[in-house]
Amino acid sequence: MSPEIPDIVVSRLPIYLRALSRMALEGLEVTSSQELGKRLGISSAQIRKDLSHFGEFGKQGTGYKINYLTDQLRRILKVEREWAVALVGVGDLGHALVRYNGFRDRGFRITLLFDNDPAKVGSQLDGFTIYDAAQMRSLIREHHIALAMVAVPAEAAQGVTDELVKAGIKGILNYAPINLAVPDDVRVQYIDPVVHLQRMTYYV
Amino acid sequence: MSPEIPDIVVSRLPIYLRALSRMALEGLEVTSSQELGKRLGISSAQIRKDLSHFGEFGKQGTGYKINYLTDQLRRILKVEREWAVALVGVGDLGHALVRYNGFRDRGFRITLLFDNDPAKVGSQLDGFTIYDAAQMRSLIREHHIALAMVAVPAEAAQGVTDELVKAGIKGILNYAPINLAVPDDVRVQYIDPVVHLQRMTYYV
Repeated sequence: MSPEIPDIVVSRLPIYLRALSRMALEGLEVTSSQELGKRLGISSAQIRKDLSHFGEFGKQGTGYKINYLTDQLRRILKVEREWAVALVGVGDLGHALVRYNGFRDRGFRITLLFDNDPAKVGSQLDGFTIYDAAQMRSLIREHHIALAMVAVPAEAAQGVTDELVKAGIKGILNYAPINLAVPDDVRVQYIDPVVHLQRMTYYV
Repeated sequence: MSPEIPDIVVSRLPIYLRALSRMALEGLEVTSSQELGKRLGISSAQIRKDLSHFGEFGKQGTGYKINYLTDQLRRILKVEREWAVALVGVGDLGHALVRYNGFRDRGFRITLLFDNDPAKVGSQLDGFTIYDAAQMRSLIREHHIALAMVAVPAEAAQGVTDELVKAGIKGILNYAPINLAVPDDVRVQYIDPVVHLQRMTYYV
């Protein structure tokens, strides 16, 4: 985990982890950089090079033990534990995120919900109370939460982000279709389906 | 639109288009590569270089006319028209996608819904009928649809994808947390929130 590891390498580790978990579900116990590469459309040399930044995970000729490599990647990505995540914006998308069962076994759990709609504040969703967005700063601090998802309209996203930063959030997954300004010690990742669709229509 | 334009350049065009649309909403009429770069955390030189692949969009010293550059980017990305999109999987996420109002003014509209749950097939969502997944191939062909979103569980995603490919789909936005195998002439883009979250926890 030396700091000089390129971000592009880091960005591929979750993809490797996901593929390995899938292989384990399929009952496989051992794999190779060739097999993994074939599933992912990435060269086996690239996979070996990426993993070599973090240690020696397999033996020449015998491949990788899937459980072992999975555990190591979880450790490297720090998802061997469960991260609590705050969600701001409990509209249609927020609902879907709260109900999505793909977070928990991969290291995350949405535990703190916020909205600014008085009709929603105080109600429960999947066992969690929806809190007033005005309480974001105090509640996130109180719960020592480092990650948040922003699922509010574009117009509201920067204001929410400013509050999250003040609350101590260090990573934001932003679903609003707008670029966010944050300090250098806060990371933002973007999910915008239209950006992906437009990237495909260029070629169609 | 020469074929040798690097995909990394193409991938930034939707981000530029999104930022320009936001500027227009804010009432701005003219911008510069500096201003755009500041909003996006991209260098102005990079933006000028990216755009120069496609023509001359601004004059030295006077910047870009936002409406003009917006129109040109829409044309380049082929979203000056509206693309019909098929959605497979009308669960929580599928519902949120159908109800999301951020597609239409950016070139897309979900018009054909599929699910394999008999309880859903035949019902309406936002004015559209949910069809049996068994009808995917015939209906997608009949409507000449080129784009699809996959919002089914991971176990079902490759099977659905195989059907979509047979139906003539050329671009797939995949929300299932699994890598898909497709022929060379079909593009896949992935949306998996956990991949983004894990990419941030590495650094936190």
